[in-house]
Amino acid sequence: LACLSLSKDRFDRMRNIKLILEYDGTEFCGWQIQPNARTVQSELKKALQTILHEEISITGAGRTDTGVHASGQVANFFTDAGMEPSKIKAALNGTLPRDIRIITVESVPLQFNARFDAKKREYHYKITRRERAIARDYFWCYKGDLNIDKMRQASQHFIGEHDFQSFCKASPEVTAHICHVETLDWIEEEDFLMMKIIADRFLHNMVRIIMGTMIQIGRGKIDPAQIPHILAAKDRKAAGATAPAKGLFLVKVYYE
Amino acid sequence: LACLSLSKDRFDRMRNIKLILEYDGTEFCGWQIQPNARTVQSELKKALQTILHEEISITGAGRTDTGVHASGQVANFFTDAGMEPSKIKAALNGTLPRDIRIITVESVPLQFNARFDAKKREYHYKITRRERAIARDYFWCYKGDLNIDKMRQASQHFIGEHDFQSFCKASPEVTAHICHVETLDWIEEEDFLMMKIIADRFLHNMVRIIMGTMIQIGRGKIDPAQIPHILAAKDRKAAGATAPAKGLFLVKVYYE
Repeated sequence: LACLSLSKDRFDRMRNIKLILEYDGTEFCGWQIQPNARTVQSELKKALQTILHEEISITGAGRTDTGVHASGQVANFFTDAGMEPSKIKAALNGTLPRDIRIITVESVPLQFNARFDAKKREYHYKITRRERAIARDYFWCYKGDLNIDKMRQASQHFIGEHDFQSFCKASPEVTAHICHVETLDWIEEEDFLMMKIIADRFLHNMVRIIMGTMIQIGRGKIDPAQIPHILAAKDRKAAGATAPAKGLFLVKVYYE
Repeated sequence: LACLSLSKDRFDRMRNIKLILEYDGTEFCGWQIQPNARTVQSELKKALQTILHEEISITGAGRTDTGVHASGQVANFFTDAGMEPSKIKAALNGTLPRDIRIITVESVPLQFNARFDAKKREYHYKITRRERAIARDYFWCYKGDLNIDKMRQASQHFIGEHDFQSFCKASPEVTAHICHVETLDWIEEEDFLMMKIIADRFLHNMVRIIMGTMIQIGRGKIDPAQIPHILAAKDRKAAGATAPAKGLFLVKVYYE
């Protein structure tokens, strides 16, 4: 617990607050606090400190990258200020910039951790099949022909527990690449195509690399039967390109 | 015809080009050319003149206001350049800013006029019932309780031919206020509410004033049975406020 070093009196007043929030990733350098960059976590920290008049440390469920959106990001923080959750929500929405909105605020048990208690995360990746002016920061425009049947076939090979090193931006810090993909569905609506993916965890750029590879499959450049071999290669170069950030949304985080 | 003063040779080569276009109204001072303002018509004129190397005059089907979007605006212009419609489309989308996209380009009979030949226009007004960060320039956020049944009841009073002076921004230039409303439907989806309206013509701010009045009805401030009296008043002050521009979309223009 972050509050172990506190006095008994302050510890007794300590509450753990869970937030569900939405943000437009377009003008953020992602979720995580970085020096000299506008990030969601830093804007949220600044707003909370203004409201609660104490140092606040925020834990987020998913570290979204620059340009990635979230409609259901989850975060938690500790506070000993006595402000009601509904008041915190109103004060945050009054203080935060318009590209972050707080959807719910609730008091949760002290042991709740937005990141480590998350069981599953759901991401959506949206593509438009023709050029658009309206809402153009919220999907990737891909105008070429796509064989959606082949993309659905390929999806089956991702379901279950696999090593996703081929679908991960290489990093010396990350050594565990096993993820359990529970759902990988395609939803077509008018000129839109959406990939819905649910897994216990996601590696860096994983959804965007799966999407980039799926486009190659839809174009007939990679056969769906190649997916098991691409997974087995455990090599980023075996998979397709990384699709643009703006089509990606963190939609939901699942807890017990 | 705009081309009456041309030489016979140039007249023979003259073609009338019809465009369907989409634009994000957020950063435009509306459709119509104005000095020292960024408008859709002026951006389009500039791009066409760059591509076709001749003076171009554009007629639009609907003069949308500042901040109003269009997914199906129609325009036409005359040219004696021999460029194929598909080439014009590609060149325009390569030249125009990203908040205007050309959907279709076709050659039409010389007598076609995008404005005067339009039989009906379809507008959508979108509301979100909770605060949102994503796509926030593309709907109005109205968080209060709304009785949608009453709004549907009120809608029936707008259907048919009526004098809409009460639902029109006053202007000495406009003396004809009769419009024939063919459709006024409400579509609910998750936290969204959309008003779909089709009429032969629309007066200045008409959809936005209908929407503002509908909100008063949904809140219980105006009874649905009051609508015939508001119409009969022929007085802008009898109707509700003008809803924000960003929720409004010109979706389709109908021709014979």
